[in-house]
Amino acid sequence: MAYELHYWPTIQGRGEFVRLALEAAGAPYIDVARGAEEAGLGVPAMQRCLHDRKLVHPPFAPPFLIDGNVVVAQTAAILQYLAPTLKLVARSEQLRVWTQQIQLTIADMVDEAHDTHHPVGAGLYYEDQKPEALRRATDFCRVRMPKFLQWFEAIVVRNTAGTRHLVGGKLSYADLSLFQLVEGLRYAFPKAAQQALASTPAVVQLHDRIADLPRVAAYLRSDRRIPFNEQGIFRRYPELDIA
Amino acid sequence: MAYELHYWPTIQGRGEFVRLALEAAGAPYIDVARGAEEAGLGVPAMQRCLHDRKLVHPPFAPPFLIDGNVVVAQTAAILQYLAPTLKLVARSEQLRVWTQQIQLTIADMVDEAHDTHHPVGAGLYYEDQKPEALRRATDFCRVRMPKFLQWFEAIVVRNTAGTRHLVGGKLSYADLSLFQLVEGLRYAFPKAAQQALASTPAVVQLHDRIADLPRVAAYLRSDRRIPFNEQGIFRRYPELDIA
Repeated sequence: MAYELHYWPTIQGRGEFVRLALEAAGAPYIDVARGAEEAGLGVPAMQRCLHDRKLVHPPFAPPFLIDGNVVVAQTAAILQYLAPTLKLVARSEQLRVWTQQIQLTIADMVDEAHDTHHPVGAGLYYEDQKPEALRRATDFCRVRMPKFLQWFEAIVVRNTAGTRHLVGGKLSYADLSLFQLVEGLRYAFPKAAQQALASTPAVVQLHDRIADLPRVAAYLRSDRRIPFNEQGIFRRYPELDIA
Repeated sequence: MAYELHYWPTIQGRGEFVRLALEAAGAPYIDVARGAEEAGLGVPAMQRCLHDRKLVHPPFAPPFLIDGNVVVAQTAAILQYLAPTLKLVARSEQLRVWTQQIQLTIADMVDEAHDTHHPVGAGLYYEDQKPEALRRATDFCRVRMPKFLQWFEAIVVRNTAGTRHLVGGKLSYADLSLFQLVEGLRYAFPKAAQQALASTPAVVQLHDRIADLPRVAAYLRSDRRIPFNEQGIFRRYPELDIA
């Protein structure tokens, strides 16, 4: 049976980390909110699940995944749930925790990237918080982005199984998520990202290898991949790209 | 062998979620950065680990836990690592993912509580972002806090094993973390929290039961529990307590 992925239909957002895992594994899934309302899909279908009072494990917010009777929300928890079945995580419990730790650090950086354009509140428009956004983006581009990327570089380089993957010698969801993080940074902060990535060659090589995986490459060319835009987490506001 | 917990010594912060799990389970641990420098402990000992280039799984930031050869960072990943040994999570893989999902939602709310006093950037003083903090805190107190607490109420009430715990019929780290969240909200936003918690009686009862667990109660009375203060995540700035 196909997985149901529930996420906002017009942005990559946090749902993209789940999409990439499903796509890289060739797993069948329905991108529910992007489907037609006449077919019982679309945003109303997602909202019905979100507000379903019969769910014992209700999601707090999208993205969430439905797999038969199982409902899982929170990006990192969804990936952890899917990964053993999709063969996107090692068998060892210790390496599973390490993979989750990397994912949570990626999620922290994603949150900080989001906050560059919405420091005062996600409920307000960017236009209502532009001076604050500039202060926050300056700190993000100059301090936080290099610091995070140097950490990812360090863990790739220190991987005792080689620098082709973040965890051991096999593809994991953390590799896919790091790919997506680099994609997002390059879109939102082209100058700052280029500068920071110049000192993290192993991260860039890992990104490029993921992009070339046949299923990932096919997905990126397809219309299942929503283009980056200025409603998502990674937004190209040139004034916030502080190189 | 005792666990080593590494976290900033003067605040509860994110380290407190790990401390509570260790304390509730009666597990032996060393709170490294709170120890004496002459004894090889203190913040320098934590910094040495953070910057140890020999670590294959280096932490990005505190808190982190050292258990023999294993180093784990990220609060939710640390709890996931500890929980089976400390008997603070169910055996079923599905309930383990659900427990993690709850923990990640608590972490999201903790992040949002932090951002009320530091919306523009964690690197700046509160005094340099007071107007923005007020805007952010207003949204947090009026919209986000009730929304999160209603979700916790719903999942306690819907627990098919009864409302004494969040997951199944046994204590889990998610219960301890929800206790800490309520403690923090009551400290930082006494009026707003009282108002929101008035509609979530099951959350309040769960909090009170955790506070009465003998080991937790003994810990809370001890000097191992750092008092809340205005350097941590939950800060009492009366002007931000929008009831």
